[in-house]
Amino acid sequence: MLKQTEKFEVGQYLPWAEVVEILPFNADGLLPAIAQQYDTGEVLMMAWMNREAMDETLSTGRVCYFSRSRQKLWRKGESSGQVQMLKDMRFDCDGDTILLVVDQTGPACHSGRRNCFYNAVRGDRLEVISEPLISPEELYGK
Amino acid sequence: MLKQTEKFEVGQYLPWAEVVEILPFNADGLLPAIAQQYDTGEVLMMAWMNREAMDETLSTGRVCYFSRSRQKLWRKGESSGQVQMLKDMRFDCDGDTILLVVDQTGPACHSGRRNCFYNAVRGDRLEVISEPLISPEELYGK
Repeated sequence: MLKQTEKFEVGQYLPWAEVVEILPFNADGLLPAIAQQYDTGEVLMMAWMNREAMDETLSTGRVCYFSRSRQKLWRKGESSGQVQMLKDMRFDCDGDTILLVVDQTGPACHSGRRNCFYNAVRGDRLEVISEPLISPEELYGK
Repeated sequence: MLKQTEKFEVGQYLPWAEVVEILPFNADGLLPAIAQQYDTGEVLMMAWMNREAMDETLSTGRVCYFSRSRQKLWRKGESSGQVQMLKDMRFDCDGDTILLVVDQTGPACHSGRRNCFYNAVRGDRLEVISEPLISPEELYGK
Protein backbone atom coordinates (compact mmCIF):
# COMPACT_ATOMS: atom_id res chain seq x y z
CA MET A 1 0.00 0.00 0.00
CA LEU A 2 1.22 3.48 -0.83
CA LYS A 3 -0.63 5.22 1.98
CA GLN A 4 2.43 7.23 2.97
CA THR A 5 2.79 9.05 -0.38
CA GLU A 6 -0.68 10.62 -0.02
CA LYS A 7 0.77 13.49 1.98
CA PHE A 8 3.91 13.88 -0.15
CA GLU A 9 4.66 17.10 -1.99
CA VAL A 10 5.38 16.99 -5.73
CA GLY A 11 8.88 15.58 -6.17
CA GLN A 12 8.96 13.64 -2.90
CA TYR A 13 9.68 9.95 -3.44
CA LEU A 14 10.18 6.46 -2.12
CA PRO A 15 12.93 4.15 -3.40
CA TRP A 16 11.40 1.95 -6.11
CA ALA A 17 13.23 -1.09 -4.67
CA GLU A 18 11.22 -0.66 -1.45
CA VAL A 19 7.93 -0.01 -3.22
CA VAL A 20 7.99 -3.19 -5.33
CA GLU A 21 8.25 -5.21 -2.14
CA ILE A 22 5.01 -3.79 -0.71
CA LEU A 23 2.82 -3.61 -3.82
CA PRO A 24 -0.53 -5.32 -3.09
CA PHE A 25 -0.52 -7.98 -5.80
CA ASN A 26 -3.75 -10.01 -5.79
CA ALA A 27 -4.00 -13.70 -4.85
CA ASP A 28 -2.68 -14.62 -8.32
CA GLY A 29 0.30 -12.27 -7.95
CA LEU A 30 -1.13 -9.76 -10.42
CA LEU A 31 -2.08 -6.09 -10.67
CA PRO A 32 -4.38 -4.60 -13.32
CA ALA A 33 -2.64 -2.31 -15.81
CA ILE A 34 -4.43 0.27 -17.94
CA ALA A 35 -2.67 1.29 -21.16
CA GLN A 36 -3.23 4.87 -22.34
CA GLN A 37 -1.84 6.40 -25.54
CA TYR A 38 0.51 9.16 -24.41
CA ASP A 39 -0.38 11.89 -26.90
CA THR A 40 -4.11 11.44 -27.51
CA GLY A 41 -5.14 10.21 -24.05
CA GLU A 42 -7.05 7.31 -25.62
CA VAL A 43 -7.55 4.38 -23.24
CA LEU A 44 -6.30 1.45 -25.31
CA MET A 45 -6.77 -1.68 -23.19
CA MET A 46 -6.50 -3.22 -19.77
CA ALA A 47 -4.42 -6.29 -18.95
CA TRP A 48 -2.49 -7.71 -15.99
CA MET A 49 1.11 -7.62 -14.78
CA ASN A 50 3.03 -9.76 -12.32
CA ARG A 51 6.27 -8.66 -10.73
CA GLU A 52 8.34 -10.13 -13.57
CA ALA A 53 6.28 -8.38 -16.29
CA MET A 54 6.70 -5.10 -14.44
CA ASP A 55 10.46 -5.54 -14.10
CA GLU A 56 10.87 -6.49 -17.75
CA THR A 57 8.74 -3.54 -18.91
CA LEU A 58 10.82 -1.09 -16.90
CA SER A 59 14.14 -2.53 -18.00
CA THR A 60 13.36 -2.88 -21.72
CA GLY A 61 10.94 0.03 -22.20
CA ARG A 62 8.63 -2.29 -24.11
CA VAL A 63 5.40 -3.31 -22.40
CA CYS A 64 5.16 -6.91 -21.20
CA TYR A 65 2.01 -8.24 -19.51
CA PHE A 66 1.17 -11.54 -17.86
CA SER A 67 -1.42 -13.47 -19.85
CA ARG A 68 -3.99 -15.02 -17.52
CA SER A 69 -5.31 -17.34 -20.22
CA ARG A 70 -1.87 -18.59 -21.28
CA GLN A 71 -0.32 -18.24 -17.79
CA LYS A 72 2.88 -16.76 -19.11
CA LEU A 73 4.58 -13.48 -19.93
CA TRP A 74 3.03 -11.76 -22.92
CA ARG A 75 5.26 -9.32 -24.72
CA LYS A 76 2.63 -7.11 -26.32
CA GLY A 77 2.99 -7.37 -30.09
CA GLU A 78 5.00 -10.62 -30.05
CA SER A 79 2.66 -12.19 -32.61
CA SER A 80 1.02 -9.10 -34.17
CA GLY A 81 4.03 -6.80 -34.31
CA GLN A 82 1.91 -4.07 -32.69
CA VAL A 83 4.12 -3.16 -29.75
CA GLN A 84 3.66 -0.72 -26.89
CA MET A 85 6.65 1.39 -25.91
CA LEU A 86 6.55 2.68 -22.34
CA LYS A 87 6.50 6.43 -21.76
CA ASP A 88 5.59 6.37 -18.07
CA MET A 89 4.48 3.90 -15.39
CA ARG A 90 2.24 5.25 -12.64
CA PHE A 91 0.50 3.78 -9.61
CA ASP A 92 -2.73 4.89 -8.01
CA CYS A 93 -3.24 5.99 -4.40
CA ASP A 94 -3.71 2.41 -3.17
CA GLY A 95 -0.83 1.10 -5.30
CA ASP A 96 -3.13 -1.60 -6.64
CA THR A 97 -3.65 -0.31 -10.18
CA ILE A 98 -1.02 0.59 -12.78
CA LEU A 99 -1.40 3.24 -15.46
CA LEU A 100 0.92 2.64 -18.40
CA VAL A 101 1.40 5.70 -20.56
CA VAL A 102 2.50 4.21 -23.87
CA ASP A 103 3.13 4.74 -27.54
CA GLN A 104 1.11 2.06 -29.33
CA THR A 105 2.02 0.93 -32.84
CA GLY A 106 -1.18 0.34 -34.85
CA PRO A 107 -4.10 -1.45 -33.23
CA ALA A 108 -3.94 -2.34 -29.52
CA CYS A 109 -6.86 -4.76 -29.88
CA HIS A 110 -6.66 -8.31 -31.27
CA SER A 111 -9.80 -7.47 -33.27
CA GLY A 112 -7.70 -5.03 -35.29
CA ARG A 113 -9.27 -1.97 -33.67
CA ARG A 114 -7.15 0.84 -32.25
CA ASN A 115 -8.54 0.23 -28.76
CA CYS A 116 -10.46 -2.56 -27.04
CA PHE A 117 -13.38 -0.44 -25.78
CA TYR A 118 -15.55 -0.53 -28.90
CA ASN A 119 -18.74 -1.87 -27.27
CA ALA A 120 -20.86 1.04 -25.99
CA VAL A 121 -24.17 1.02 -24.12
CA ARG A 122 -26.69 2.99 -26.19
CA GLY A 123 -30.12 2.89 -24.57
CA ASP A 124 -31.21 -0.75 -24.56
CA ARG A 125 -28.41 -1.81 -26.92
CA LEU A 126 -24.73 -2.63 -26.73
CA GLU A 127 -23.46 -1.15 -29.97
CA VAL A 128 -20.14 -1.40 -31.79
CA ILE A 129 -18.69 2.10 -32.22
CA SER A 130 -15.39 1.63 -34.07
CA GLU A 131 -14.05 -0.38 -36.94
CA PRO A 132 -10.80 -2.31 -37.37
CA LEU A 133 -7.77 -0.49 -38.78
CA ILE A 134 -6.71 -3.85 -40.20
CA SER A 135 -8.33 -7.30 -40.24
CA PRO A 136 -7.27 -9.80 -37.56
CA GLU A 137 -6.33 -12.20 -40.38
CA GLU A 138 -3.88 -9.67 -41.80
CA LEU A 139 -2.70 -8.70 -38.32
CA TYR A 140 -1.75 -12.23 -37.37
CA GLY A 141 -0.61 -13.19 -40.86
CA LYS A 142 -3.12 -15.97 -41.31
CA MET B 1 -17.85 -12.93 -23.33
CA LEU B 2 -18.52 -10.56 -26.18
CA LYS B 3 -16.71 -12.63 -28.80
CA GLN B 4 -19.52 -12.22 -31.32
CA THR B 5 -19.29 -8.42 -31.55
CA GLU B 6 -15.67 -8.61 -32.77
CA LYS B 7 -16.85 -9.00 -36.33
CA PHE B 8 -19.67 -6.45 -36.09
CA GLU B 9 -19.75 -3.35 -38.27
CA VAL B 10 -20.13 0.05 -36.62
CA GLY B 11 -23.75 0.39 -35.51
CA GLN B 12 -24.42 -3.34 -35.16
CA TYR B 13 -25.63 -4.26 -31.70
CA LEU B 14 -26.77 -6.82 -29.19
CA PRO B 15 -29.69 -6.22 -26.82
CA TRP B 16 -28.27 -4.93 -23.53
CA ALA B 17 -30.67 -7.21 -21.59
CA GLU B 18 -28.93 -10.20 -23.17
CA VAL B 19 -25.42 -8.84 -22.68
CA VAL B 20 -25.76 -8.27 -18.92
CA GLU B 21 -26.63 -11.94 -18.51
CA ILE B 22 -23.36 -13.10 -20.10
CA LEU B 23 -20.87 -10.56 -18.71
CA PRO B 24 -17.90 -12.43 -17.17
CA PHE B 25 -18.05 -11.09 -13.61
CA ASN B 26 -15.19 -12.43 -11.49
CA ALA B 27 -15.59 -14.85 -8.55
CA ASP B 28 -16.68 -11.90 -6.37
CA GLY B 29 -19.31 -10.81 -8.92
CA LEU B 30 -17.27 -7.77 -9.98
CA LEU B 31 -15.78 -6.17 -13.08
CA PRO B 32 -13.03 -3.52 -13.04
CA ALA B 33 -14.18 -0.07 -14.20
CA ILE B 34 -11.83 2.65 -15.43
CA ALA B 35 -13.10 6.23 -15.13
CA GLN B 36 -11.90 8.68 -17.78
CA GLN B 37 -12.73 12.40 -17.91
CA TYR B 38 -14.76 12.89 -21.09
CA ASP B 39 -13.24 16.11 -22.40
CA THR B 40 -9.57 15.92 -21.37
CA GLY B 41 -9.06 12.15 -21.66
CA GLU B 42 -7.47 12.06 -18.19
CA VAL B 43 -7.64 8.63 -16.53
CA LEU B 44 -9.10 9.46 -13.14
CA MET B 45 -9.30 6.20 -11.21
CA MET B 46 -10.14 2.52 -11.32
CA ALA B 47 -12.72 0.83 -9.11
CA TRP B 48 -15.11 -2.12 -9.28
CA MET B 49 -18.75 -2.64 -10.23
CA ASN B 50 -21.19 -5.43 -9.55
CA ARG B 51 -24.38 -5.94 -11.53
CA GLU B 52 -26.36 -3.68 -9.19
CA ALA B 53 -23.81 -0.82 -9.39
CA MET B 54 -23.91 -1.07 -13.17
CA ASP B 55 -27.71 -1.00 -13.27
CA GLU B 56 -27.91 1.96 -10.90
CA THR B 57 -25.26 3.91 -12.83
CA LEU B 58 -27.13 3.41 -16.09
CA SER B 59 -30.51 4.31 -14.64
CA THR B 60 -29.44 7.39 -12.66
CA GLY B 61 -26.59 8.67 -14.85
CA ARG B 62 -24.46 9.07 -11.72
CA VAL B 63 -21.62 6.63 -11.23
CA CYS B 64 -22.03 4.03 -8.49
CA TYR B 65 -19.28 1.48 -7.73
CA PHE B 66 -19.10 -1.49 -5.39
CA SER B 67 -16.65 -0.90 -2.55
CA ARG B 68 -14.58 -4.02 -1.92
CA SER B 69 -13.36 -2.75 1.46
CA ARG B 70 -16.84 -1.80 2.68
CA GLN B 71 -18.63 -4.56 0.73
CA LYS B 72 -21.45 -2.29 -0.34
CA LEU B 73 -22.56 0.08 -3.08
CA TRP B 74 -20.50 3.25 -3.19
CA ARG B 75 -22.14 6.22 -4.82
CA LYS B 76 -19.07 8.17 -5.88
CA GLY B 77 -19.11 11.49 -4.05
CA GLU B 78 -21.57 10.42 -1.34
CA SER B 79 -19.27 11.71 1.40
CA SER B 80 -17.04 14.16 -0.54
CA GLY B 81 -19.66 15.69 -2.85
CA GLN B 82 -17.30 15.03 -5.78
CA VAL B 83 -19.63 13.10 -8.08
CA GLN B 84 -19.08 11.47 -11.45
CA MET B 85 -21.79 11.92 -14.05
CA LEU B 86 -21.86 9.23 -16.72
CA LYS B 87 -21.29 10.25 -20.33
CA ASP B 88 -20.75 6.78 -21.81
CA MET B 89 -20.30 3.19 -20.63
CA ARG B 90 -18.14 0.94 -22.80
CA PHE B 91 -16.94 -2.65 -22.63
CA ASP B 92 -13.76 -4.11 -24.02
CA CYS B 93 -13.43 -6.97 -26.50
CA ASP B 94 -13.62 -9.61 -23.76
CA GLY B 95 -16.43 -7.83 -21.96
CA ASP B 96 -14.46 -8.08 -18.74
CA THR B 97 -13.42 -4.45 -18.31
CA ILE B 98 -15.62 -1.35 -18.25
CA LEU B 99 -14.59 2.10 -19.45
CA LEU B 100 -16.70 4.84 -17.86
CA VAL B 101 -16.50 8.12 -19.73
CA VAL B 102 -17.50 10.63 -17.07
CA ASP B 103 -17.68 14.24 -16.02
CA GLN B 104 -15.93 14.43 -12.66
CA THR B 105 -16.65 17.26 -10.22
CA GLY B 106 -13.40 18.34 -8.52
CA PRO B 107 -10.96 15.69 -7.33
CA ALA B 108 -11.59 12.03 -8.14
CA CYS B 109 -9.05 10.91 -5.54
CA HIS B 110 -9.66 10.73 -1.78
CA SER B 111 -6.23 12.40 -1.37
CA GLY B 112 -7.74 15.55 -2.91
CA ARG B 113 -5.91 15.12 -6.21
CA ARG B 114 -7.72 15.32 -9.52
CA ASN B 115 -6.76 11.72 -10.36
CA CYS B 116 -5.45 8.75 -8.41
CA PHE B 117 -2.37 8.05 -10.57
CA TYR B 118 0.04 10.50 -8.95
CA ASN B 119 2.84 8.00 -8.14
CA ALA B 120 5.23 7.73 -11.10
CA VAL B 121 8.31 5.57 -11.58
CA ARG B 122 11.28 7.87 -12.22
CA GLY B 123 14.48 5.86 -12.49
CA ASP B 124 15.01 4.19 -9.13
CA ARG B 125 12.33 6.27 -7.43
CA LEU B 126 8.56 6.31 -7.13
CA GLU B 127 7.85 10.01 -7.19
CA VAL B 128 4.71 12.04 -6.50
CA ILE B 129 3.83 14.09 -9.60
CA SER B 130 0.71 16.06 -8.68
CA GLU B 131 -0.64 18.00 -5.76
CA PRO B 132 -4.09 18.06 -4.15
CA LEU B 133 -6.68 20.53 -5.46
CA ILE B 134 -8.08 20.58 -1.95
CA SER B 135 -6.98 18.97 1.32
CA PRO B 136 -8.64 15.68 2.34
CA GLU B 137 -9.68 17.35 5.61
CA GLU B 138 -11.59 20.03 3.73
CA LEU B 139 -12.92 17.48 1.24
CA TYR B 140 -14.47 15.31 3.90
CA GLY B 141 -15.42 18.20 6.19
CA LYS B 142 -13.29 17.06 9.08
